[in-house]
Amino acid sequence: MTVTATPPPGSGPPGTAAPAAAVPDPSPELLQRAATVRRCAMALGQCGDGARQQAVLAMAEALEQARPSILAANQADLEAAAGNGLAPALVARLKLDAAKLDGAIAGVRQVAGLPDPVGRRQLHTELDQGLVLERLSVPLGVVGVIFEARPDAVMQIASLAIRSGNGAILKGGREASRSCGAILAALQTGLGRSAVAPEALTLLTSREESLALLKLDGLVDLIIPRGSNALVRFIQDNTRIPVLGHADGVCHLYVDAAADPEQALRVALDAKTQYPAACNAIETLLVHRAIAPAFLSLAIPAFARAGVELRGDGASQALGVPVAATEVDWGTEYSDLILAVKVVEDLETALEHIGRYGSRHTDAICTTDAATADRFLAAVDSAGVFLNCSTRFADGFRYGFGAEVGISTQTLPPRGPVGLEGLVTYRYRLRGEGHIAADYAQGERRFTHRSLPL
Amino acid sequence: MTVTATPPPGSGPPGTAAPAAAVPDPSPELLQRAATVRRCAMALGQCGDGARQQAVLAMAEALEQARPSILAANQADLEAAAGNGLAPALVARLKLDAAKLDGAIAGVRQVAGLPDPVGRRQLHTELDQGLVLERLSVPLGVVGVIFEARPDAVMQIASLAIRSGNGAILKGGREASRSCGAILAALQTGLGRSAVAPEALTLLTSREESLALLKLDGLVDLIIPRGSNALVRFIQDNTRIPVLGHADGVCHLYVDAAADPEQALRVALDAKTQYPAACNAIETLLVHRAIAPAFLSLAIPAFARAGVELRGDGASQALGVPVAATEVDWGTEYSDLILAVKVVEDLETALEHIGRYGSRHTDAICTTDAATADRFLAAVDSAGVFLNCSTRFADGFRYGFGAEVGISTQTLPPRGPVGLEGLVTYRYRLRGEGHIAADYAQGERRFTHRSLPL
Repeated sequence: MTVTATPPPGSGPPGTAAPAAAVPDPSPELLQRAATVRRCAMALGQCGDGARQQAVLAMAEALEQARPSILAANQADLEAAAGNGLAPALVARLKLDAAKLDGAIAGVRQVAGLPDPVGRRQLHTELDQGLVLERLSVPLGVVGVIFEARPDAVMQIASLAIRSGNGAILKGGREASRSCGAILAALQTGLGRSAVAPEALTLLTSREESLALLKLDGLVDLIIPRGSNALVRFIQDNTRIPVLGHADGVCHLYVDAAADPEQALRVALDAKTQYPAACNAIETLLVHRAIAPAFLSLAIPAFARAGVELRGDGASQALGVPVAATEVDWGTEYSDLILAVKVVEDLETALEHIGRYGSRHTDAICTTDAATADRFLAAVDSAGVFLNCSTRFADGFRYGFGAEVGISTQTLPPRGPVGLEGLVTYRYRLRGEGHIAADYAQGERRFTHRSLPL
Repeated sequence: MTVTATPPPGSGPPGTAAPAAAVPDPSPELLQRAATVRRCAMALGQCGDGARQQAVLAMAEALEQARPSILAANQADLEAAAGNGLAPALVARLKLDAAKLDGAIAGVRQVAGLPDPVGRRQLHTELDQGLVLERLSVPLGVVGVIFEARPDAVMQIASLAIRSGNGAILKGGREASRSCGAILAALQTGLGRSAVAPEALTLLTSREESLALLKLDGLVDLIIPRGSNALVRFIQDNTRIPVLGHADGVCHLYVDAAADPEQALRVALDAKTQYPAACNAIETLLVHRAIAPAFLSLAIPAFARAGVELRGDGASQALGVPVAATEVDWGTEYSDLILAVKVVEDLETALEHIGRYGSRHTDAICTTDAATADRFLAAVDSAGVFLNCSTRFADGFRYGFGAEVGISTQTLPPRGPVGLEGLVTYRYRLRGEGHIAADYAQGERRFTHRSLPL
C-alpha cells in the first residue's frame, strides 16, 4: 500500500516533472559506489537461502543494539523539522518512537522468515536426450529505492532486498537524513556479522546523487519510489530504468441496479474511509440510475456522518448530493475524505467511465447479478477487478504475499500488488553433452521437448 | 531468433539515435486509428479460445485466397527495389515467392493450434471464507510492431497477436509496402469472416506514423521491433512504452582447462558458423591458458576451413591466431564470420571479461569439471547460461515454446527467448460477499490465506 502525501519541502526530486536535462550525470564517486554495490550484490546473489536469512536476522539484531542511537538521530531530525516548520502529516511520518522502531525490527525478522524467492525452478524441459533446459528464479541485482520522509521504510526495503539476494541503493528524504544514516549504519554492522558484504547496501544523501541514481542504467535494475504521486511521476518521466510503482490510483466502485443496497453502502464506506490516503481507496462512486434513488437516500447521510464530502453530477445532485462535481473531479485522486458520485445509465456507461478516467489500479462492482458481475470482471482492464468487496483489499499483505514491494499499474507483469517476486527475475540454464544446433537444422536429430518434473 | 542486418535505406527510423524531439506527436488521425484498434482489441480480449482460433484460421484461408495478389504485390516491391538498388541481402529478405508464402501461411495455421495463453489461473487463494482471489492471464491489449523488409513477419506477428487476444499496429519497411498492404488486406478479410473485428489490425505506412507510434503511451502496451540492432536501439531510446527486444548480442563461449577439446571445438564452430547473423551466435571465444595450446592448434585450422576470421589477443596470436584484436573487438557483435579470441588466466578472468563486455544474452562454458560448471552457471548474469552446448539453442522454438515473439536481454521478465506468454499479462480478480477491510484492521476477522487448486 502506498500512502500519498504532499512532497516535503526540499526533499528529493521536485513534484513537477522537470526536463530530462535537469537530471545530472552520475559523479565518478557515485559510479564507483554503485559498482561496488553491484559487485557485492552479485556475490550476495550466489548465497544460499540460509546465508541470506542469517544476514537479515543479523541486521535485526544490530538494529536492536543500535536502538538508542537510532532514536536519538530521529529526535535530532524531528527537532530540525520543527525548526523548519515541516507539515504535521510529514512530522508524523518522520517520527520513529520506540514502539514504531520495535515494530519495524519485528518486520525485519518476519522478512527473514519469508519463503525464499530465489532458485525456484519454473520450467524444466528435456529438449533432447542429454540436453536439459531449466528456468530458475534469480535476484534482479541492485534495486534503487527513493522514498520520502519515512525512515522505517529503510529497514523494510533493505531487508526485502537482502532476503531476495539483491543489493540496494537507498535515498531517503533530507529531513530524515540523520535517522536514515543511523539505521543504515546498524544494518551494515549487522551485515558485517554475516556472509553478506556491508557494501551491498548504500545510502545516498544529497539531492544531486538522488537524481543521478536515475541515470545508473546497467548498474541499477529496478527503481522503487515510495512517496507521493508527484515523486513517482517525476521518476517515471526521468529514467530508463524500470520503475515499480504507480503515479495514480483513481479507483471506482460501481453500484449496479441489482446490488444489495446495504451491502454496497458498507463496501463503499470502507473503500472510501478506512484509509482515505491509500492508493486503493475509491475516488468515484458510479451508481446505476435504477437504484440511485434508493441507494443515495441511504448513502448521502451515511457519508455525511463519516465526514465525507460528496461531489455529484447533475443526476446525483438532483437526488441530494450537495456539491457539484466538475470534469476535473472524475480524474482526481483526492487521497482525502472526498468522493465523486455519478449516476450512470447502465453497466456499459459505467465501463466507459472507468476506461476513460480510471488508473487501471483497482475497480469494484457491487451486484447480485451473475452475468453483470462476469461482464464487469472481464471488461475492466485494471490490475484488480473486485466483486462485492472493498478495493482496500488490493494490498500485498492482504493478498497473502507476506510482503509488499509496491503496487504497479503498468500493463506488463509484475502488475498490481507485488511481493518478493518483484525483486527476482529468471535465467535459462541449458546443460548439454556437446549438442550443436546444426544437427537439428539438418534433421539429423529431433527435439523431444519433454516436460520434466519441477 | 532475431537476424541483424544493415538498415535498408529510407526504411523506418534512422540507425543512429536522433534526439527525442525528432519523434513527432501522433496526428489526430493516428490517435483515432489507434483508439479504434484498442477498442477492437478489448472486445477481442474477451473472445474465447475457440473464437480466437477460428479467427486465425480464417486469416490463413484468406491469405491462401489472396495468394495471387500478394505475390504480385511482392513482385512490384521487388521491381521497385531493383530500381532503387536495394542491397542483395535485403532483396532476399523482401522476396516472398510461392514457397515462402506457403510456409508463412502454414505458420499462421500452426499459431492457431498453439495452446491458449489467455485465461490461465496462475494463483488461487481463499483470503477468508467467501473472499476468493484469483490471478488470471489476460491479453496485453495492443502491440506495436516495427519491422524492416521481411513481409512474412506481418503474417507471423499478426497471427500471434490475434491468437493471444491482442490488437496490433504494424509498421513494415517502405520497400515492402505493397506486399504488406496486400497481406494486411487479406488478414482483415479473414477477420471479417470471424468474431474478431478487422480493425483489430492496422498497418502504418508513412515514416512519420512509424515514429509517432513510439508516443502512443496508453494506447499501445508493448513495442516489438524486428530488425537491426540500430533499429532496436533507436526505439528503446525514443519511447516510454516497454520494448521487447535486444539491441546487442555479444555472446561468449569459454573453453575451460577441463574441456574436452574436440567437443569444445564442435560447439564453438556451431555457435559461430551455423548462422552467423543470428543474435545468439558467439562473437568471442575465451580459452583457458592451460588448454590454449592444444585447443587452438585444433581450432585455428578448423575455423580457417569454415571461413572464419579469427582476431586474437597477444597470447592467442603467439599461438597462431593471425589477426590482432583491439579493444573494440571485445564489445562488437560481428554478425558475420569473424570471431575474437582471448586466452584467459582462469575462470574468474573469463567471468570478469563476460561481465564487462557481454550483452547478458547467452554465454556458454565447455568443461568436464562439475564445480567449474556450477560456478560459471551461477555467476554469469545472462538470460541464458549454457554448459557444453551451442549458444544457438537460445531460441523460442528450440526451447519448445512453439513460437517466438522476441528475445529480451533486459533484467526483468520476460527475459531470454519469449513465446506467446510475452503477449499476455495478468489481472487479479477478487470475489467477496460484502467483505470490508476494516473488519481485518480491527481484528474482528482474520485472513485464512488458504491455497486453492489452480
